[in-house]
Amino acid sequence: MSAPRTEEAIVGRFQAAFRGSPTASLSIALGDDAALWHPNRRQETMLTCDWFLEGTHFLRDKHPADAVGWKCLARAVSDIAAMGGTPRCFLLSLALPSSHTGRWLAEFLKGLERASRAFHCDLAGGDTTRRDEILITVTVIGEIPMGRAVLRSGARPGDGVFVSGILGEADLGLRGLRRGRAVSRRKNSALRKHLYPEPRLALGRWLAEKRLATAMMDLSDGLSTDLPHLCRASRAGALIEAALLPRSHPSDALWLALNGGDDYELLFTVKANNVHRLPRTFRGLPLTRIGEMTCEQKILLRTEDGRLRLLRPGGWDPFRSIG
Amino acid sequence: MSAPRTEEAIVGRFQAAFRGSPTASLSIALGDDAALWHPNRRQETMLTCDWFLEGTHFLRDKHPADAVGWKCLARAVSDIAAMGGTPRCFLLSLALPSSHTGRWLAEFLKGLERASRAFHCDLAGGDTTRRDEILITVTVIGEIPMGRAVLRSGARPGDGVFVSGILGEADLGLRGLRRGRAVSRRKNSALRKHLYPEPRLALGRWLAEKRLATAMMDLSDGLSTDLPHLCRASRAGALIEAALLPRSHPSDALWLALNGGDDYELLFTVKANNVHRLPRTFRGLPLTRIGEMTCEQKILLRTEDGRLRLLRPGGWDPFRSIG
Repeated sequence: MSAPRTEEAIVGRFQAAFRGSPTASLSIALGDDAALWHPNRRQETMLTCDWFLEGTHFLRDKHPADAVGWKCLARAVSDIAAMGGTPRCFLLSLALPSSHTGRWLAEFLKGLERASRAFHCDLAGGDTTRRDEILITVTVIGEIPMGRAVLRSGARPGDGVFVSGILGEADLGLRGLRRGRAVSRRKNSALRKHLYPEPRLALGRWLAEKRLATAMMDLSDGLSTDLPHLCRASRAGALIEAALLPRSHPSDALWLALNGGDDYELLFTVKANNVHRLPRTFRGLPLTRIGEMTCEQKILLRTEDGRLRLLRPGGWDPFRSIG
Repeated sequence: MSAPRTEEAIVGRFQAAFRGSPTASLSIALGDDAALWHPNRRQETMLTCDWFLEGTHFLRDKHPADAVGWKCLARAVSDIAAMGGTPRCFLLSLALPSSHTGRWLAEFLKGLERASRAFHCDLAGGDTTRRDEILITVTVIGEIPMGRAVLRSGARPGDGVFVSGILGEADLGLRGLRRGRAVSRRKNSALRKHLYPEPRLALGRWLAEKRLATAMMDLSDGLSTDLPHLCRASRAGALIEAALLPRSHPSDALWLALNGGDDYELLFTVKANNVHRLPRTFRGLPLTRIGEMTCEQKILLRTEDGRLRLLRPGGWDPFRSIG
């Protein structure tokens, strides 16, 4: 496939990949300056943006282009899920080396388009430029009925702390990928979770609709890094039980469940007298109580031998990682 | 000033810089997953995003940090002006080297915050990460009364072609900056226009409100590159008169007026029988008729000696520039 050499040709690629995609509520504007969007009147608009950068968030020679396309949208959509909202459309900022405007771009767009369909989130516009490295930012616009968004700040002492799914699985998948057995391990669920994460949209919406979650966020940087954000916003602490953390195999290191990033599971809190209303699984996805919110503004971990220790952020922070 | 080392500390910098900025219609979400925004019911929402990358769009050692902050927002807001809309809020994706999270970031935020106030466009959220190079994407959300947005596609043969302001000035400013006389030439209006461009919001809104512009866009890549987009969208051609192009000095090369980028002036078309309704200046800004739309789908330039030649894109295209 020939590589388009102008920005316009690249926009053309987008138009071709997303033909017929926009819904009636969205005036697509790939060839215009801005997109037009008509939210309805009882809804709140949600806005979120996320970097997805070569070297920082993915590796050019390890991550298939279609996974890069899927994941850059999935992680931004996950922020909408984390508040209980519904994604509507997205903007893509893409910088590419000229060498990647052919086959790589085509595969990338396939993954992106597949994610766009899966999440019912239409491409609304974007900006492309040339760069030696692959740089991506995705902005997602979502909606939620007025007043229903679940913030990080609503947790109170005594609330149960829950997570969806299994923790640390995506990090395990990344380790496999780094060891270089990418294609043969496609069927491996950890690798699949790392490459093609599924934002927990249905669960987020259900928790918001039923007013079950008092606070919520998604787990992108790892529990030990993300939970402090929720605690700080809620001006509370938490006690987490190591024995309760959902791991794929009991033999998996506790470290992974506490610190592994990229899971895009939901972390949420539920009032003690509502805990019985939560099912064990939601559409096949396990919901696990891993501890409770406390008054004292610190985060404790009860290890499996019963000892208490301070849980320190050990997950991923792009600014800390290089000290 | 000490340099924040974690993403959270950097978000704190944003919160400090923009304290008190959000309006009632915007639930700010710097510490949350997504921003919430309540557009009113008779408005259309506009969405646009723009890269602003070190090396491609600015030079780390030549461009003052506050100009980088101003300009990254100004150029995205200009896309809203180009459709006649009003900016409401923006999201910032910022990647920075650790060495730049101190003084550079403080200056950057000063410029950004000054632009945010000047354009009445509030910070709604963002994403920061560490990177060796300075990378910026800005997403602006704007509004316009339903059905009033001026698209690129509305120009018809016979319409007059107009531009606001002076063409090529920003490119002249960039040349001065590159020659390394940055500080001493601060008062130079060309340099000021290059560093602190002013999106033509009031003019854009006025043209949309009065239904005077049949098509409109902003000049970011230079007239010879941008005009073909408008012509293609409108399925028409244009005849441009070299003698009419507004230049700061008659001695300035025609090349600059045709191909200089970064002016962020408005290019718009007006029906022949409405041309008399356009003032010569709008709030001090010259409005100049530079030619007219034609049936034949090509763009001609009549040079000052009366000869016709095809006008080819000579402005800035990030994908073409490296061939």
